[in-house]
Amino acid sequence: MKKIKILTFILLVFIACKDKMSSNSDKETSNSHTMTQKNEFGIILHGGAGTILKEHMSDSLELAYKEVLEMAIKTGYTILENGGTSLEAIAETIKIMEDSPLFNAGKGAVFTHHETNELDASVMVGNTQDAGAISGVTRVKNPIDLAIKVMTDSPHVMLSGEGAEQFASEQGIELVDPSYFFTENRFRSLQHIKDSERTALDHDGKTSSVTPEIKDSKFGTVGAAALDKHGNLAAGTSTGGMTNKRWNRIGDAPIIGAGTYANNATCAVSSTGWGEFFIRAVVAHDISALMEYKGLSLEEAAREVIQKKVPALGGDGGIVAIDKNGHMVAEFNTAGMYRASMNAQGEITIGIYKE
Amino acid sequence: MKKIKILTFILLVFIACKDKMSSNSDKETSNSHTMTQKNEFGIILHGGAGTILKEHMSDSLELAYKEVLEMAIKTGYTILENGGTSLEAIAETIKIMEDSPLFNAGKGAVFTHHETNELDASVMVGNTQDAGAISGVTRVKNPIDLAIKVMTDSPHVMLSGEGAEQFASEQGIELVDPSYFFTENRFRSLQHIKDSERTALDHDGKTSSVTPEIKDSKFGTVGAAALDKHGNLAAGTSTGGMTNKRWNRIGDAPIIGAGTYANNATCAVSSTGWGEFFIRAVVAHDISALMEYKGLSLEEAAREVIQKKVPALGGDGGIVAIDKNGHMVAEFNTAGMYRASMNAQGEITIGIYKE
Repeated sequence: MKKIKILTFILLVFIACKDKMSSNSDKETSNSHTMTQKNEFGIILHGGAGTILKEHMSDSLELAYKEVLEMAIKTGYTILENGGTSLEAIAETIKIMEDSPLFNAGKGAVFTHHETNELDASVMVGNTQDAGAISGVTRVKNPIDLAIKVMTDSPHVMLSGEGAEQFASEQGIELVDPSYFFTENRFRSLQHIKDSERTALDHDGKTSSVTPEIKDSKFGTVGAAALDKHGNLAAGTSTGGMTNKRWNRIGDAPIIGAGTYANNATCAVSSTGWGEFFIRAVVAHDISALMEYKGLSLEEAAREVIQKKVPALGGDGGIVAIDKNGHMVAEFNTAGMYRASMNAQGEITIGIYKE
Repeated sequence: MKKIKILTFILLVFIACKDKMSSNSDKETSNSHTMTQKNEFGIILHGGAGTILKEHMSDSLELAYKEVLEMAIKTGYTILENGGTSLEAIAETIKIMEDSPLFNAGKGAVFTHHETNELDASVMVGNTQDAGAISGVTRVKNPIDLAIKVMTDSPHVMLSGEGAEQFASEQGIELVDPSYFFTENRFRSLQHIKDSERTALDHDGKTSSVTPEIKDSKFGTVGAAALDKHGNLAAGTSTGGMTNKRWNRIGDAPIIGAGTYANNATCAVSSTGWGEFFIRAVVAHDISALMEYKGLSLEEAAREVIQKKVPALGGDGGIVAIDKNGHMVAEFNTAGMYRASMNAQGEITIGIYKE
């Protein structure tokens, strides 16, 4: 009897060890073993991150923003609900915001130093990892449409400047007069920034633009990420860039891996922030890599990148993302980020400030 | 006595289990615990990957290539040996190849559809993860110099087109007449490709350019990666893009995370290949992420990306890279890749074809 008790005890110790070892490896591979629930779908958007404070917002302006955010998210959602693709959903959602003068994309885009508007956009789909991107266009009414066209109807991923517009013209993408993008508000912002710069300029090319107001003028982008009923992810981003932009500067919005990334194995991400830092940190791809290679959840990966890695470099901003199971995340390290989401249960969230 | 034997046995089983569990976690973190050997340093370069076959190469041309590769690698090496920075080393190495008409960068750059030369370049340093990039310049003699200037003397990471050249002019970067870049060989290649395209064109925008010769015209970039005696990594890439380029297309060379990436925690990487696939696969950053998050060695990570992931998407090309301990890797899935390396022991390798 004693021998049996002892042997049983040895056996229990052994089993306890083995369980601990296999649960460690299970945790690592759990992401790849998780069932993709085909009935899950959803869409999340952002309209830009930055120093967005309630005390600076009139009630009517806040209402105006919320109305467009709601319209945008519902437009994309309806497409998904009806079995449409995540690509189509994010495109239509983004176009609502491009067409609204409230957001720094399409109409309402900020002005460059030379008082022009230069627009960038990118898109990526999670099944084939196909992508499209454009930078520095001046007459394309809906940049996201052109980015998609580059992806689907050209042998390339990224086109720029006049060449991108030539392609747009060949492909029947709607072109407008550059004055279409003008808004009084953004034009005044440019003059204001130019005045601030004249006082802030300290002849150090690298730090001449770090006052809060000038820093905030870098933010402002729209984007969306979605999962459709077919289990496919997609993400897109569109922007007018930064106020007082010089030298045909390109930010993160049209850079695959920085501003936009999608991979059915992990997630779809759209970024908004201080573009230079998002490029250096390869933000969107880094979130996916943390999930794929380190087994982090989308929440953990987004937090790691947005709350630790980007600030460690000195940058600000945020992302919205959705994983292959429909979990959605809005993560930002600024005072606010315009955002909205809708899940398969039809639950809608709309936000502006940090909660 | 019997009880002692049994208890000893139980204890041994327990210790055996515990050792197995901790050796698993040791393996995962072993990369971060590896000592950075400060006396290790090295530099590796590439001059482009593609269908480079011995039967197509005359002895004299092969010798000409090897001479420039040797001069380039030794130039960078000497800087490192004398305690110079990895940034300076890769810059001087790359400039040797930019100035040589043999490589598709700087002089010797391929021609666009419109018979112009549009140059791209990027650079990144591993300590601060600062980066600089330019696309679509037409008069900058050494694009890598301008990319570095953007990094060190502007508040931005990426500039493009005329704006980038305006910045170059303001910064005293050497500008030349566009005709400087002309070489008879590359001009003839353009005419040849145009003729092939006329026969190969099947009105499908996406597949019109996949004959081997046309595919190969996409390759050709120069780049380098180095580790200096201070333990800092740096990488850079420079290119004339693809023959018969249209629409101001941007490839992977100026895209941080795709063509160039450096991070003192992992490695420095420079890519050369079918740019569109390298952008979609975020190649350079993916190699670093596999090392950092999955604990792969540089060799394993490079092989995973270049031999599996990029081909899985349908792409070709290669990379050169060096890790924080000075291990160097040249990985490519094409018939050849111009390459050279020199390590701390002064051992030099020069290669063209697959071994």
